[in-house]
Amino acid sequence: MRKLFFSFALLCLSVAGWGNSRHPLLLLSPAGVERIRTEAGRIPEFDRVVRETVAAADAAIAHGVEIPVPRDHGGGYSHERHKDNYYDLYHCGLAYQLTGREAYARFVREMLEGYAAMYPGLGPHPANQRPDQAGRLFWQPLNDCVWLCHAALAYDCIYEWLAESERQKLEGDLFRPMAEFLSNGTERTRKTFDMMHNHGTWATVAVGMIGHVMGDRDLVEKSLYGLKKDGKGGFMRQLDELFSPDGYYTEGAYYQRYALWPFVVYAQVLDNNHPQMKIFAYRDGLLGKATRAVLDLSYNGELFRINDAVYQTVDALEIVHAVDASYAADPSCKELLSVAASQGTYVISDAGLVTAAAVSRGEAQPFRPQSRLLRDGADGKQGAVAVIRQGEGDRHTALLLKASSHGRSHGHYDKLSILLFDNGNEILSDYGSVRYLNLEPRNGGDYTRENRTWALQTIAHNTVTVDSTSHFNGDIRVSERHWSQIDYAAFDDPHVQVVSASDRNAAPGVEMRRTLAVIADPSLEFPMVIDLFGLRSGSEHCYDLPYYWRGTLSETNFGMKRHAGSFPVLGGGNGYQHLWVEGTAAAVAPLSRITWFNADRFYSLTTLTGGDEQLYFVRMGANDPQMNILDRPGYLIRKPAACNHTFVSVLDIHGEYDLVRELTREFHSQVEGIELLRDDERYTAVRITLSRGRSCLFVTRNRDFSPSGENRLEFDGRSYVWQGNYGCFFESGK
Amino acid sequence: MRKLFFSFALLCLSVAGWGNSRHPLLLLSPAGVERIRTEAGRIPEFDRVVRETVAAADAAIAHGVEIPVPRDHGGGYSHERHKDNYYDLYHCGLAYQLTGREAYARFVREMLEGYAAMYPGLGPHPANQRPDQAGRLFWQPLNDCVWLCHAALAYDCIYEWLAESERQKLEGDLFRPMAEFLSNGTERTRKTFDMMHNHGTWATVAVGMIGHVMGDRDLVEKSLYGLKKDGKGGFMRQLDELFSPDGYYTEGAYYQRYALWPFVVYAQVLDNNHPQMKIFAYRDGLLGKATRAVLDLSYNGELFRINDAVYQTVDALEIVHAVDASYAADPSCKELLSVAASQGTYVISDAGLVTAAAVSRGEAQPFRPQSRLLRDGADGKQGAVAVIRQGEGDRHTALLLKASSHGRSHGHYDKLSILLFDNGNEILSDYGSVRYLNLEPRNGGDYTRENRTWALQTIAHNTVTVDSTSHFNGDIRVSERHWSQIDYAAFDDPHVQVVSASDRNAAPGVEMRRTLAVIADPSLEFPMVIDLFGLRSGSEHCYDLPYYWRGTLSETNFGMKRHAGSFPVLGGGNGYQHLWVEGTAAAVAPLSRITWFNADRFYSLTTLTGGDEQLYFVRMGANDPQMNILDRPGYLIRKPAACNHTFVSVLDIHGEYDLVRELTREFHSQVEGIELLRDDERYTAVRITLSRGRSCLFVTRNRDFSPSGENRLEFDGRSYVWQGNYGCFFESGK
Repeated sequence: MRKLFFSFALLCLSVAGWGNSRHPLLLLSPAGVERIRTEAGRIPEFDRVVRETVAAADAAIAHGVEIPVPRDHGGGYSHERHKDNYYDLYHCGLAYQLTGREAYARFVREMLEGYAAMYPGLGPHPANQRPDQAGRLFWQPLNDCVWLCHAALAYDCIYEWLAESERQKLEGDLFRPMAEFLSNGTERTRKTFDMMHNHGTWATVAVGMIGHVMGDRDLVEKSLYGLKKDGKGGFMRQLDELFSPDGYYTEGAYYQRYALWPFVVYAQVLDNNHPQMKIFAYRDGLLGKATRAVLDLSYNGELFRINDAVYQTVDALEIVHAVDASYAADPSCKELLSVAASQGTYVISDAGLVTAAAVSRGEAQPFRPQSRLLRDGADGKQGAVAVIRQGEGDRHTALLLKASSHGRSHGHYDKLSILLFDNGNEILSDYGSVRYLNLEPRNGGDYTRENRTWALQTIAHNTVTVDSTSHFNGDIRVSERHWSQIDYAAFDDPHVQVVSASDRNAAPGVEMRRTLAVIADPSLEFPMVIDLFGLRSGSEHCYDLPYYWRGTLSETNFGMKRHAGSFPVLGGGNGYQHLWVEGTAAAVAPLSRITWFNADRFYSLTTLTGGDEQLYFVRMGANDPQMNILDRPGYLIRKPAACNHTFVSVLDIHGEYDLVRELTREFHSQVEGIELLRDDERYTAVRITLSRGRSCLFVTRNRDFSPSGENRLEFDGRSYVWQGNYGCFFESGK
Repeated sequence: MRKLFFSFALLCLSVAGWGNSRHPLLLLSPAGVERIRTEAGRIPEFDRVVRETVAAADAAIAHGVEIPVPRDHGGGYSHERHKDNYYDLYHCGLAYQLTGREAYARFVREMLEGYAAMYPGLGPHPANQRPDQAGRLFWQPLNDCVWLCHAALAYDCIYEWLAESERQKLEGDLFRPMAEFLSNGTERTRKTFDMMHNHGTWATVAVGMIGHVMGDRDLVEKSLYGLKKDGKGGFMRQLDELFSPDGYYTEGAYYQRYALWPFVVYAQVLDNNHPQMKIFAYRDGLLGKATRAVLDLSYNGELFRINDAVYQTVDALEIVHAVDASYAADPSCKELLSVAASQGTYVISDAGLVTAAAVSRGEAQPFRPQSRLLRDGADGKQGAVAVIRQGEGDRHTALLLKASSHGRSHGHYDKLSILLFDNGNEILSDYGSVRYLNLEPRNGGDYTRENRTWALQTIAHNTVTVDSTSHFNGDIRVSERHWSQIDYAAFDDPHVQVVSASDRNAAPGVEMRRTLAVIADPSLEFPMVIDLFGLRSGSEHCYDLPYYWRGTLSETNFGMKRHAGSFPVLGGGNGYQHLWVEGTAAAVAPLSRITWFNADRFYSLTTLTGGDEQLYFVRMGANDPQMNILDRPGYLIRKPAACNHTFVSVLDIHGEYDLVRELTREFHSQVEGIELLRDDERYTAVRITLSRGRSCLFVTRNRDFSPSGENRLEFDGRSYVWQGNYGCFFESGK
C-alpha cells in the first residue's frame, strides 16, 4: 500500500508546475490573501487575530533586530531571543501580506540578512556538551528545525517583494546551508532526518517547506521520501509509521500535539502545491483522525498526561493549526468548529479563514468526545489507550486505561495504568514528567534526574508493581518489544461501559488483567468504577497497587498509624526511594476504604481485603535533593505474598460538599459490601452491595472473548444469563 | 448617643400600629408580593429565582414531612434533616406567597405541627456532651436560632391562611416555648441572648422575628433591648458594639458574613414594621458600611481568610441578603448591583425585587474595591485591618495587614501578619482554621484539636514569632486587652501605597513595627512589595519570620540542604511541633532569595541577610495523627540572637510562565540589591537596586507620624527631601 502511494506521489510531483508558482505558496495563497483582505471587518474573531498579528509585528519592529550569538540553553537569553525572532519573522511576514506595508517586509529582510551573515560562521552550539549532537542556533537541531519552518513562512511572504539578488544571498548563505545541515550536516542530523520520530518530522518538514519556497525540487523530494529518495525515510513514511490507523501517536497526547504541527502544516503546503496528492485523504483521512485523536485525549480541554507529559491544553497553537487545517480539508466536521471557537484564535492561513468564516456563520456543532479505543502501532495492533466517558459538563467523568506500547523515548513503564477525571478535576492522576519546561533554573527546563528515577517507574503510576520492580525491569529495549492487549471493549450501553486488557510480558511470570467498568445506573447519582486487577503466577510475589488520588482526605474505615516524628522511605530503588511512608495500617477485612473530596464532590475507593494486605499512605518527594518532585499523596495496597490475587476495588463518586452554600450530603460511600463470587480462568464475578438496598452483580469473561455467546452462571441459587463478554445485573435487595 | 437612640426607638415602637399589621410582614409585604406577581416575566434573573424557589418547594413536598428525633452532630443525619427542613419551610412559605397555591401552605402547616408535637417533649440535644450547653433540635442553641428565623419567615407567609386555632396551637406548643428557651431557657441561652457576640445576635433576631409574626411586643422589646429591656443587651446594643464605625466585625470576614444575616434580615423587619426607627441610617448607615466592609474583605470574590476562617465567597447567601437589603435601603449604591449581578441570585423579598429590577434596568456600576483601612473596635480605636489594592483583573494585587484586636473566641495570635493575592491567586496565605466544616467524619465538622495547637499560634502566620513563643503567650485573656496600632496609612498615590503599624504588647519587651509599601512604578511590569519588619528590644531574642508562599519553587540563591531520609520537627510547642523541616540553609550575605511561580507568574522574596540568619524550608503536618492539617510549604527566616533587628524584604512579581503557549520570560527577580541605609528610632531607609539600572529609595518615619512636615536626609552624598511619613524616590543608575 505504501509502495503504491509512493509511486503515485512521485508522479504527482512530476506533473505539477514546478518552481513557477506565485508566492505565498505555503499556508497562504495569493487568492487566500485576497479573500482575507476582502473579508476584513466581517468576521470579528478573525479580524482580532489579524489585529493581534499586526500588533505583534509592530512590536517586533519597535524592538528591532537583535540576533545574539548562540550561547544559552532552553529558557536562557539567546535561546529565548532566537525563539522570539522566529515569531517576529513570522508575524512580520504575515503583516506584510495582510497590509502590504513594506516596513514589515524590510524587517523580515533585515532579520534574515542578519542570520545569513552569522550562520555560515556558526559551529556546534556551545550549550550542548556533545558537539556532535548540537544544533547551530539552538542547543539541539530540533529547535533549528522549528526556526527554519517559521523562517520559511516569513520568507514565503516576502519572496516576491525581494530582489532576485537578495533571494540568492539569503538562500546561498542561510537557507541552503541550513537545509543541508538539518538533512545531511552531521551523523546526528542525517540519522534524525530519516528517523521515524517526531524530531525526524520536524527535520523533513523544515527542509520541505524551505524547499517549496525556493522551488527546490531536490529538497522537496528528500523531505517526502528520505535522503536517498527511496521512501525508506522522509515525511510520507513518517505519516505511515508514526500514527496508528486511529490517528494515535505512540508517545501520547502531549507529544502528539507537538508532532501535529509539522504534519498538518506540511500537509497544507503539499495540498496547496500538489493537490493531486490528496494528502488529507491519505490513509483513510489519517491527519483528520490524528486531530480528532488528540482532542479525544483531553478532559475539559486539558490533554491527558501520560508518559513524559507536561500540562498542556487543546488551545495549544499546534492544535489550533490542526483544527483549522482539518476543518478546511473536510468541512463536514462541524464539531471541530466548536473546538475552534473555544480556542478563540485562528491561524492566519487559507485554512484559518475558512474555519473562522464557518464559525462566524454559526455552523459549529458541539464537540462531544465519546468513549473509544485509540489503537497504538502503525498497524493498530500494539494495544490501545481506552477512554471511557460518561455524562457532560460537571457530570462528565472520564477514565483512561493505558494498554498500549512503550511510547518510544518518552514512554513510561506503566502497563494497565489508569487515570480518572470527574467534575472538571483530576481524581486519579499520572505524574507525567518531572520537568519544568522552559524554566531555566530548573535543569535548563529539561527533564530532571527524577524523571528517570521516579516518573518513568511503575510505582509512580496507578497500576501494579510486582516485587518492587518496574515493568520490564525498567529496560526500554525490552519494553519496546511488547505491548498490552485489549481483550474486549464494550461502550455501546452508556450505563455499563467496560474494557478489559491484559499483559503477559511486563512482569515476567505474571499475567496481569485489568477489567474496568464504568457503571451509571439510574439509581446512582454519579457513576461508579469497578476496577478488577487480576494477577496470575505460578510463584509467590508481592503485589503493590497504588492509587494517586487528588484532593483532601475525608475518612478511612481503618485505623491509620501516622508516623509522627519522621517518615520512613518505602524502598530502595525503582522509584520506591522517592516515596515517604506517612502512615501505615493493616487492611481491614472484608473492606478497606478511603474517602476524599475534590472541589465539591466525594470519592471513595473501597477495596476487598482479606486482612493480610498492608495499606500505606505515601507521599512523593523523598530522596529528591532539588525538590523537583511535586509533593503529592498516594494510597498503596500491598498484597505481600500471593501467587494469584485479584485486587477488587470500587471507586464511587458521591454526594456534595459545598462550602459556599454550607451544604454537605452523602459524604459516606454508597458501597456497603463487595463480594468476590468467582475468580478463575473463565470468569471473575463480583457483587457490590449499595446503600438503599440495591446491589450490582458484575461478571466478566477472562478468556474466550467474543461479543456473542451465551453465559449462564449461578450465584447464591440464582441463575444469571447474558450474551457476550460481561454481564451486569442490578438488583433490589441482595 | 446610644442612650438617646434607645429612648427614641422605644417611642417609635409605641406609636406603630402594633399587632394589627397584615402578613407577611418580615421580608415580604403584601404590596411587595403584589409587585413580584405583577413583575413576573419582566426580570429574567428574578423569574429564575422564583422558579428555583417554587421548584425547591415542590421538591420539599415530593420528599414529604420527615422530622427525626434530634440525635446527630453537625453533618449527621438528624442535623442535616432539620437544616433541610427549615429550608423546606422557607421555600414552601415563599412558594405559597408567590403562587397562592394552598398545597405549599399545607406543607408548612403540617411540618410546623409536626415540630409542635415533638418540641415540648425535647430535652437537651444528646450529641452535646454538656447538656447545659445543648440546643433542642440541634447540638447547639445557635442552630436552633437559625431554625427559628427560617420558621418565622415561613409562618409569616402562611399566617393569614391559618385558622386562629391553628395559630394558637403552633404558638403555644412551638414558637413561644422556643422563643422562651432561646432567650431565657437556660443559663447558657440567657447569657448568650444578652451577649455582645454573633451568637447573641442570632438569638435576639430569632426571638424578634417570631415576636413580630405573632405580634408579641414583649418578645420584640426583649429582642431589641435585652432580657431586662434596659438596653444593656439586645439587638440595638449588638449593633453598637459588634461593628466598628467602618462596619468591620472584629472576628474577620468569614464571621462577618455569618453575623450579617441576622443583622440585615432583622433590620429589614424593623424597617418594614417601624420605618420611624430609620434603622438603616443608624450609626451613620452602619449596616450598609458592614455590607461594604465584607465585600472589601474579599479578593476575586473569595473572603480573606484571617482568624478561624474557612473558604467562603461573596456569593454566600448571607451576603446576597446583605447586598439586596443594603441596595434597597440606599439605591444610590449602584456598585452593589454589579455584586448582585455576579452573585446571580436574589432574595425573594421586597428588597430582592428592588435590587433585581435595578440590575435588569442596567443600572449596575462596577464594584472596584479600593485600598482602605477597616478600623476595629466599637469606637474604631482598636487597630485596623489594612487592605492595599493595585490594578484590576489579572493584574489585581491585594495585600492585607492585620493590625487589629484579638477577634474574640475566633481570633488568632498573629499581630502584624500579612496576606498577599495576585493574578487571582493566593500568594502568601493565612492557614485559616483547621476545620472541615459540615464534614461529620472530621471531628463532626467542628474545629479540630490542631486548630488550637497550630492554626491559632503565631508561627502559623506571616509575622514574627519571638523566642518560639506565640504572641501574648497564646493567652486570649491577655490578647483581648491589646491591639496593634496603625501609625499611618497613605493610599492616595496609586504608585506608592504605604501602611505602617506597630505593636508593643504581643511580645513582652519587644516593640514590633511593620511598614509595607506596594510600589507600582511604571518601570515595573507588576507591583513590588517592600516589607520592613522592625524589632526593638533591650535584650536578645530569637526572631522567626515565616512566609507561607503558595505555588511551586522555581529557584533559590542559596544552597539548600534538603533532609533526605527523614525530616526533623522545628520545635516542641506553640505550633512549632507541626512543622517539618524539609531543608535548611545558612543565609547568604547580602541577600537571600527564593523564587516560585503560581499559575503563569513568578514571585521572588528577596531578604537582606547578614549571614548569621538561618533559613528553613518547612512543611505543615508534623505531629498530626489525624492528618487534619493540609500539607503546605513555608519559608522561614530566623535571626537567632539580636536585640534590635529589621527584616528587610522585597517581594517582586515578575515575568510569565505559560505552558500552553510555551512561553517563559523574566523568571529571575528584578531585585539586584537591597541596602539598609538607615534604621533607627526616627527613620528606616532602604535602597532597592532593580534590573535595567533603576533603583528605588524608600524611607519611612518610625515616629512623629504626620502627613505633613518636611524631611531632609542625605544618603551617599545626595539629598532627599519629602513631606510626610514616607518618601519614595526612583532613580536611574544608583
